[in-house]
Amino acid sequence: MKPLRYDRGRLEILDQTLLPGSETWLEIAGAEAMAEAIGSLRVRGAPAIGIAAALALAVEARGASGAAGGREAGGGGPARVERAAALLRASRPTAVNLAWACERILAAARLAPADEASGSPAWAGRIEAEALAIWREDLEASAAMARHGASLFPRATRFLTHCNTGGLATGGGGTALGVLLELQRRREGGIQVWATETRPLLQGARLTAWELCRAGVETRLVADGAAAYTIERRGIEGVLVGADRIARNGDVANKIGTYSLALAARAADIPFVVVAPASTLDPGTATGAEIRVEERDSSEVTAFAGIRTTPEGVLAENPAFDITPHELVTAVVTEFGSNRTPGELFQRFDWPG
Amino acid sequence: MKPLRYDRGRLEILDQTLLPGSETWLEIAGAEAMAEAIGSLRVRGAPAIGIAAALALAVEARGASGAAGGREAGGGGPARVERAAALLRASRPTAVNLAWACERILAAARLAPADEASGSPAWAGRIEAEALAIWREDLEASAAMARHGASLFPRATRFLTHCNTGGLATGGGGTALGVLLELQRRREGGIQVWATETRPLLQGARLTAWELCRAGVETRLVADGAAAYTIERRGIEGVLVGADRIARNGDVANKIGTYSLALAARAADIPFVVVAPASTLDPGTATGAEIRVEERDSSEVTAFAGIRTTPEGVLAENPAFDITPHELVTAVVTEFGSNRTPGELFQRFDWPG
Repeated sequence: MKPLRYDRGRLEILDQTLLPGSETWLEIAGAEAMAEAIGSLRVRGAPAIGIAAALALAVEARGASGAAGGREAGGGGPARVERAAALLRASRPTAVNLAWACERILAAARLAPADEASGSPAWAGRIEAEALAIWREDLEASAAMARHGASLFPRATRFLTHCNTGGLATGGGGTALGVLLELQRRREGGIQVWATETRPLLQGARLTAWELCRAGVETRLVADGAAAYTIERRGIEGVLVGADRIARNGDVANKIGTYSLALAARAADIPFVVVAPASTLDPGTATGAEIRVEERDSSEVTAFAGIRTTPEGVLAENPAFDITPHELVTAVVTEFGSNRTPGELFQRFDWPG
Repeated sequence: MKPLRYDRGRLEILDQTLLPGSETWLEIAGAEAMAEAIGSLRVRGAPAIGIAAALALAVEARGASGAAGGREAGGGGPARVERAAALLRASRPTAVNLAWACERILAAARLAPADEASGSPAWAGRIEAEALAIWREDLEASAAMARHGASLFPRATRFLTHCNTGGLATGGGGTALGVLLELQRRREGGIQVWATETRPLLQGARLTAWELCRAGVETRLVADGAAAYTIERRGIEGVLVGADRIARNGDVANKIGTYSLALAARAADIPFVVVAPASTLDPGTATGAEIRVEERDSSEVTAFAGIRTTPEGVLAENPAFDITPHELVTAVVTEFGSNRTPGELFQRFDWPG
């Protein structure tokens, strides 16, 4: 399940705000349209928005170079890509993958091989290749995370997950949900997954349940408030979630509601496992306290599908993420393996930024 | 804010499923209509459904006695009230107040003063008096709980609450929300309350926010999943909730999501206080594990206001309550005071059943 399509400068996203009712693909003409799409969650999920931003920058580079048949060829290209990257980075503040992907593209844009004019079609081609590499590496990372994560659960069959961390949230493979789909393939008779609906925007109800059902997984939806009871009473054997940013001490920023699940997993003495590509690790952030948590519009909480759920005049707060302290995290699974301490996590590979 | 009206056999309920959009009062002709209203949450809240059932039995007794002008006078009265009580008791299984109120009415119905014929208008009048006494005592209990609960928080101004525990959930006074309204009156400059929306049926968004705003309390609505983050980051000083049943060891059954809040309060090292009248205490239940948790229809989770939120075919689980272990409860406030251990709780007064 891929959330993006790209073919020689033509970029489309699956509008996830319309799922599961409608599968609508939107063509994205450049960085401005992609920043809107990311900000309004038409494309969402930390790895996916990194790839989406990189591809939008490739479209901008092609446009600037004249490769797309536009008029603005030549030297303006690098400046245009810099401006576009700044716009995209600002579209959502919490997930570090977005900034990381933009940095990778900018690094490629600043490279100047002797035989290549900056802003030329060759330059744009190199940027496009870098964006496609980010996407390809994400798919490979998902496959590796699925293997590493599944090996943590040699016998368990009952899991709970939060928000959407499947193909739609990544380049197509998934993080936490990728592990669950791998377990479904490995486990004779399959697994059972309880998915939280994930208010306010119901990514669990709309997207995760959809992906799980398509994969033939026995799925049960529960209200967010029912998760702790479900963990306790349904014999859940592991809670798996994704991440939007992991600080140097191992604190995890993820979709609002994650911290409650970690507390409930600890109370039930079952593993709480975070699955995220290495691009989610942020060595520039010491602890979760430093992570900027995006506050989204209160109307996401005070209304549902345009119907107001609370009296006019009631204020709402809508933090999109919360911070789970590293003490509650049993293991972090990246493409490089499973790491049980923050120290291991940041030492076992060269951070790609 | 009273959820019921009663005047000489005429019983009406405020249909809480239509709030806050519409204030619609429904006339309730007897036990069957009341059982439907309780089962579909037109009237809800552990104390309120006890009072509602008692009043419905008073209506049945009047009908049986001919006091309402009906034809079915005489000896059929006690049997009719017994049947009606059985129907009402079965309408919701978790809140013990419902069974307790029915028992009180049946005990009154079985009394036979020498000068009173069973099933007579005098008999029906005594049942009506008992139902009105249950209501009046609930109002007095709310006032006492408000005082006892408020005294636990001599200086705090920032609170979080769950579901609806106000006038609408009781005879008019409230349990946890009654304490908060008392604190609003006592505290110069007022208090601030964060209310969870309380999926699936949004009693927090629809009812609590409405009651708080009417009382002039500075109110902020948050998604259920945001509660733990809010407790941590907004400096919440106390979490106050109601209860539907309290077991002998102090375990508390309350609206789904309560257990998560208790875990979050413990993690933040702030008081988690349960406010409930003594009719909620159930000496017949040893621990929370024995409490039957009502499982409601999955459509409450898979749809919102008639709009399906998840693909067709996705199953949902919808436990209406969860169990908070007594270790996480800082204090239980009843009309008799504040009790910090289950032993104190059950020893300090004669249980009224």
